[in-house]
Amino acid sequence: MPRILRLNMTDRTYRWEEVPPDYAGLGGRALTSRIIRREVPPTCHPLSAANKLVVAPGLLTGAPAANTGRISVGGKSPLTGGIKESNSGGLVSQKLARLGVAGVVVEDKPRPEDGFSLVRITKDGVEFHTADDLTGRGNYQTMARLWKRFGRGIGVMSIGQAGEKCLTSASIHFADPQGRPGRAAGRGGLGALMGSKKLKALVVDDKGTPPVPLADPQKFKAAARKWAKYLLEHPVSGQALPAYGTAVLINIVNEAGALPTKNFRGGRFEFAEHISGERLVELIKQRGGKTKEGCHPGCLIQCSQTFHDAKGKYLTSGFEYETIWALGANTLIKNLDEIAVIDRLCDDFGMDTIEMGCTLGVLMEGGVIPWGDGPAAIKMVKKVGTRDPWGLIIGNGSVFTGRALGVDRVPAVKGQGLPAYDPRAEKGVGLTYATSPMGGDHTAGYGVATNILGCGGTPNPLKKEGNVELSRNLQIATAAIDATGMCLFVAFPVLDNPDALQCIVDLINARYGLNLTTGDVGALGRQVLHDELSFNQDAGFTKAHDRLPEFFAKEKLPPHNTTWDFTDEEVDQVLGDL
Amino acid sequence: MPRILRLNMTDRTYRWEEVPPDYAGLGGRALTSRIIRREVPPTCHPLSAANKLVVAPGLLTGAPAANTGRISVGGKSPLTGGIKESNSGGLVSQKLARLGVAGVVVEDKPRPEDGFSLVRITKDGVEFHTADDLTGRGNYQTMARLWKRFGRGIGVMSIGQAGEKCLTSASIHFADPQGRPGRAAGRGGLGALMGSKKLKALVVDDKGTPPVPLADPQKFKAAARKWAKYLLEHPVSGQALPAYGTAVLINIVNEAGALPTKNFRGGRFEFAEHISGERLVELIKQRGGKTKEGCHPGCLIQCSQTFHDAKGKYLTSGFEYETIWALGANTLIKNLDEIAVIDRLCDDFGMDTIEMGCTLGVLMEGGVIPWGDGPAAIKMVKKVGTRDPWGLIIGNGSVFTGRALGVDRVPAVKGQGLPAYDPRAEKGVGLTYATSPMGGDHTAGYGVATNILGCGGTPNPLKKEGNVELSRNLQIATAAIDATGMCLFVAFPVLDNPDALQCIVDLINARYGLNLTTGDVGALGRQVLHDELSFNQDAGFTKAHDRLPEFFAKEKLPPHNTTWDFTDEEVDQVLGDL
Repeated sequence: MPRILRLNMTDRTYRWEEVPPDYAGLGGRALTSRIIRREVPPTCHPLSAANKLVVAPGLLTGAPAANTGRISVGGKSPLTGGIKESNSGGLVSQKLARLGVAGVVVEDKPRPEDGFSLVRITKDGVEFHTADDLTGRGNYQTMARLWKRFGRGIGVMSIGQAGEKCLTSASIHFADPQGRPGRAAGRGGLGALMGSKKLKALVVDDKGTPPVPLADPQKFKAAARKWAKYLLEHPVSGQALPAYGTAVLINIVNEAGALPTKNFRGGRFEFAEHISGERLVELIKQRGGKTKEGCHPGCLIQCSQTFHDAKGKYLTSGFEYETIWALGANTLIKNLDEIAVIDRLCDDFGMDTIEMGCTLGVLMEGGVIPWGDGPAAIKMVKKVGTRDPWGLIIGNGSVFTGRALGVDRVPAVKGQGLPAYDPRAEKGVGLTYATSPMGGDHTAGYGVATNILGCGGTPNPLKKEGNVELSRNLQIATAAIDATGMCLFVAFPVLDNPDALQCIVDLINARYGLNLTTGDVGALGRQVLHDELSFNQDAGFTKAHDRLPEFFAKEKLPPHNTTWDFTDEEVDQVLGDL
Repeated sequence: MPRILRLNMTDRTYRWEEVPPDYAGLGGRALTSRIIRREVPPTCHPLSAANKLVVAPGLLTGAPAANTGRISVGGKSPLTGGIKESNSGGLVSQKLARLGVAGVVVEDKPRPEDGFSLVRITKDGVEFHTADDLTGRGNYQTMARLWKRFGRGIGVMSIGQAGEKCLTSASIHFADPQGRPGRAAGRGGLGALMGSKKLKALVVDDKGTPPVPLADPQKFKAAARKWAKYLLEHPVSGQALPAYGTAVLINIVNEAGALPTKNFRGGRFEFAEHISGERLVELIKQRGGKTKEGCHPGCLIQCSQTFHDAKGKYLTSGFEYETIWALGANTLIKNLDEIAVIDRLCDDFGMDTIEMGCTLGVLMEGGVIPWGDGPAAIKMVKKVGTRDPWGLIIGNGSVFTGRALGVDRVPAVKGQGLPAYDPRAEKGVGLTYATSPMGGDHTAGYGVATNILGCGGTPNPLKKEGNVELSRNLQIATAAIDATGMCLFVAFPVLDNPDALQCIVDLINARYGLNLTTGDVGALGRQVLHDELSFNQDAGFTKAHDRLPEFFAKEKLPPHNTTWDFTDEEVDQVLGDL
């Protein structure tokens, strides 16, 4: 039976705990959000001893089905003050599952004078080590040293300098199958929470463990085969993403007029071609590198890549659409190499690239650096690794930087910078930004899949009609999918193929010997959202926080010249009667 | 009939407006809060065009009764995000009243490239001037230049560099009768709001105006005579405050064990004697300067002073208890001259000294500068006047600085740093900190007057009993007093002498020809709080925001070793059924 592992970071002790009934049958986001809801006082300071960092593999993670290896990380967000789940690829999730760990709960808070710890989990037990040799180092060095010390291929979850300093845009990074930190639980500043616990890295080694048990191996195998077929057959997950990575969206979203440009002033970037997925692949092919990589073993989509610099030397990996948009179109930086350098810095220091892109936009809005000036942006981002107070400002994200500079035009909801789709021209995802308990977030209900990519329907991204239901249904479905350990991109076949959802249910049933129906999946998603929304309510969130910044309603977005025109009542319907 | 003056800062135009029925009969805080409630969208960004800055004299201001010359300034607070009223002495209030101005409403927002304006109000009209020659200058130079240009003795309301930069601890300063900026609407960052409107200074000249009309001059005169007697007879307003200024409280609150020391770690400061009111007066007498000054003409209490440096040269004025505590005991700085230098810098740059003291405590907590190091603190504060990004951090206050540094032990409520009375040993004011719509604020319901100074009862400051009612009654009474233009210290005679409240009502009745009763005063206070609480509710505040930081419940405060032990339910009773 899977157990919960509790780490006390003050005493450097741990204990194993059977999964209590209230947490039974939950995985991934469903488990992290339930534990936070039950155990963390909603009004506590996110960096105080009372907050907890929870790490949980999904319900299907570790079993031999494609794209089920995501890891959920949860806590009270240092960025938003609300509940947070952020999930990532990497190697930790499947290894935890094979070690029989349903979740790791990181608790308490060492004294300021205490050093950082390293925790290692193997089949033989849990070890606390000092992390003195890693402290102050970036994720690249940290992961390299840990692979060298504990073995290549082990799972590593770590923070860089940003997390150590408790900067609230700090992310938590996961070694990818090549041992690089290109994978992250990026959003919501959970790296600051990990930093406040003085946990530099968690190392997970599953050597010597058996495969996860399957209640009905035959049925599982049959469903897994079907599942792989659905993923590979869909044009988005089977063709577009493998060919160009997520950056395939640059040209598509630009064409749709929803690519936020110059701090959300326009929906089309004059130089979109320069930063497109097509251009990315062209450069990778010219310089070496790799166009197709998975973020975890068993991934069939392979949307990741290795990007080399002009000299053919490794520069960065996991170079996502949202990253390229944030650091590119949003700041008017049109040089993909400069964008890649900033991405690399963010991975190394451990910072969310979306938040950094919004922050650079605000810095430019405030006149601190010029629009489109890549070298100036790189110089600013580097300060996060130094004692320069600018690092403390920009490392705390877009809203914080806006306040430092007196800039009121900050694209953020609940303190979190908005991602790569302008809500005036992508209204489905705009409603998700407004209402998700996660704050401004696209993954919580990816309206783009339907509005722009046409999966599962075609509500007009420029109009209101149909988008309230779209955001609502996607948020419920996503909450359930995030409980399984599956990657967000399974949404493409699920939206278009009614058999795909049944197939996921078949996998869960065969794994655990259950008789769930597709209706149970919706119920699970609702329950997750309910935990999250009620935490936020007790933390002091109201409908007044479910609002986009005023300028989206006031300023028309070229080229379609649409505004954010939902009434408060319409927005409140999205998750109104869950 | 008094009128409302509206200034459009984008067009640099103005218009006069009759007081509409909904605003009639309101003055000071009652008027500023009503206008904000009715006209400002609660979820707007505090620095956006939608926010308004409202300036209003009290109901009694301008009439010949003692201590009625305070000015209320209101807006959506850039510091707390809630409604704000902050009041100050100075010369503007009485002059506006004599010019027949019930309130000035500063509206809209110039473009980033527009320069600052100067607005002058005289009996002949309203003039907009560019403020290019004042931009970038501190309040000392600004006021000196404006007196030189427009005449000594005119009313000036201005911001320094902090307000120009929209830093959210920026205050708005008012020239005192000597033309110095020692008087401020200090709390809540209203200087940033004024800065966002690009209003550098408002100049008010009442030359050639008649006295304010009195409906019944004889009755008014009789009541005013009685009123003066009550003020002078009370030992606090008649003796202690005139003798030592508000700094008389250093020794008293220290003795009570409620003087927050080292970022709210203890209730007694080893070196309290060094920074006491008694010491202050001793130094003033040695060096020249003045021990008794009023913040506006007609003040009988004279709690202000002129403080010279060791060479006998003017250093600062309006050197308050809360300032000396914040920059002294809270930071362990024990040198009154160093504290005075920081006070001077805060007056000049235009920053709230309470917020700065809390901020310096957080900087020390975070290890940026050593505890008690006055020269290091001075060096940090000076950075607000430069391009150094530390200035952007500390100028945004204690919560912001805590976030920059990852410090979770920040004494603040609703984003505003707590003042000079530890809530664990001064529970009446602690409840005001928690529940006031203003955020952590002592003036909104000054429990100290009763708990420690024994006026109007003697609930034990260390125990819970009686303090819920105390805070509630004081918050209602204060809201009403803040509508009259009277200074907070009128509370001393009012609390101890049942005739004093009737006397205030007599003054209002004789001024306007009304027949109000003392019951109407309570109703007015309730109405003001209702406007404020409902604004905050619509801005997204809930009971979850009416909480003190966790450490007050967890850490015992020496020497009495009490904690903050109110339940949430008890706290919620304070303003629960207004």
